Amino acid sequence: MTEEIADPSHPRYQSLMMRKKVSDAGAKGMLAESAMIAHGRGEAFDYLLSEQTIDSAFAATKEVAARLVKAKKPVLSLNGNAIALAAREFLLIASQLGCPIEINIFYRTPQRMGALLAHLKLLNTNLDLDVEILGGVPDARIPGLEGPRAACQQKGIFEADTILVPLEDGDRCEALIAMGKEVLVIDLNPLSRSARTGTVAVVDEVTRVAKNLVQLIPQKPEITDWNNDQALQDALNHIVKTMSKKFE
Amino acid sequence: MTEEIADPSHPRYQSLMMRKKVSDAGAKGMLAESAMIAHGRGEAFDYLLSEQTIDSAFAATKEVAARLVKAKKPVLSLNGNAIALAAREFLLIASQLGCPIEINIFYRTPQRMGALLAHLKLLNTNLDLDVEILGGVPDARIPGLEGPRAACQQKGIFEADTILVPLEDGDRCEALIAMGKEVLVIDLNPLSRSARTGTVAVVDEVTRVAKNLVQLIPQKPEITDWNNDQALQDALNHIVKTMSKKFE
Repeated sequence: MTEEIADPSHPRYQSLMMRKKVSDAGAKGMLAESAMIAHGRGEAFDYLLSEQTIDSAFAATKEVAARLVKAKKPVLSLNGNAIALAAREFLLIASQLGCPIEINIFYRTPQRMGALLAHLKLLNTNLDLDVEILGGVPDARIPGLEGPRAACQQKGIFEADTILVPLEDGDRCEALIAMGKEVLVIDLNPLSRSARTGTVAVVDEVTRVAKNLVQLIPQKPEITDWNNDQALQDALNHIVKTMSKKFE
Repeated sequence: MTEEIADPSHPRYQSLMMRKKVSDAGAKGMLAESAMIAHGRGEAFDYLLSEQTIDSAFAATKEVAARLVKAKKPVLSLNGNAIALAAREFLLIASQLGCPIEINIFYRTPQRMGALLAHLKLLNTNLDLDVEILGGVPDARIPGLEGPRAACQQKGIFEADTILVPLEDGDRCEALIAMGKEVLVIDLNPLSRSARTGTVAVVDEVTRVAKNLVQLIPQKPEITDWNNDQALQDALNHIVKTMSKKFE
């Protein structure tokens, strides 16, 4: 925030820096008006997780890494907040996997798409990477969704067998599952429809997950018989533990 | 939000309308950049409370009404979000109590103060009320706080025996308690420092609380021997109940 001069010794320094990233991206026209509210919701859930990667979230991240590595045609579907917070890490992940990134935003406007494409492409060049950035020219539709929310690209989301969707809308997550894809979700709310619908859901902050994926993907972990409900309940239990008998 | 055309049949209509109020106030220059993030945090906690006034929150609201009615010199201390969401209700409450409203914002700028003062004064006139609106000309300081956050008005917050603080910062809440005042807090996060420090904390959404206060104040309820910790634990227990064994 322009209003808060972040001091690295501040106990909430990381959280304030993430706010600043979202705020800066907003100023660049990369975000919908609702992005700040969505970020605030995330902050509340992260606060309840004590702003850390809990064990079950790390296990879920490893499972996501395993499935991305094994996928025939993976794609990273990124929205504005994911790009604002962890564009660099997602470009590294796409490069490690040799897969495209598709920008897929909920409130699509040409201006916002342009700002996001320009931001990713510039960073791609600066990092000396060669990641394909899709989303600018949608030529396919996700069945079951109406309006611009269905827009996607044939060689990206439409044909992918495995999709990483950080901070995805519940409707779209369900529609992707209905297409028969593996949907790997990053969502701080363990009760959200996306978290409950996804094949694997990581209940953790998107920047921390992306950093962990960069470390885990080269290790090529093995796929397991993943129980998503159990991981979600584990996240809830962590929150419950924080709240139970707090004042007694 | 300009992006979402709210439909009254939408299950989250109330929530979307509150967003719109905050968004509109932002467009009028009434809010700090962090206001949308703060609203999002609130949304997350309200979601965990199932977007309803739970029994312990209603009891706390009644206690707040009782203490405001009995106070010798009450004042309503309002920030930008409280004014964005429930200006009308707070003007009615101040009129019922015959007390002033003091605008007290965390990130004070002359522009923002001007926009908030103008908004409240116009509404005051439109509602044919005669509520005194303070905050524009601070002439006293809250001891123990630094910078513009300490600014207040002698005949408002400084001399008040009882202060209603919706959505208050933790530091300021503690400083007001240290001044020996009764501090009546409205905060959706039962773990926040304000909720834990306040004399009475209502864990509920500010619009719902304000509407309930308008109903309760004319009933002149009696003060009780209020146990704030118990009410906070009750709110946590409600959230815990939502989360426990959700997936088992």
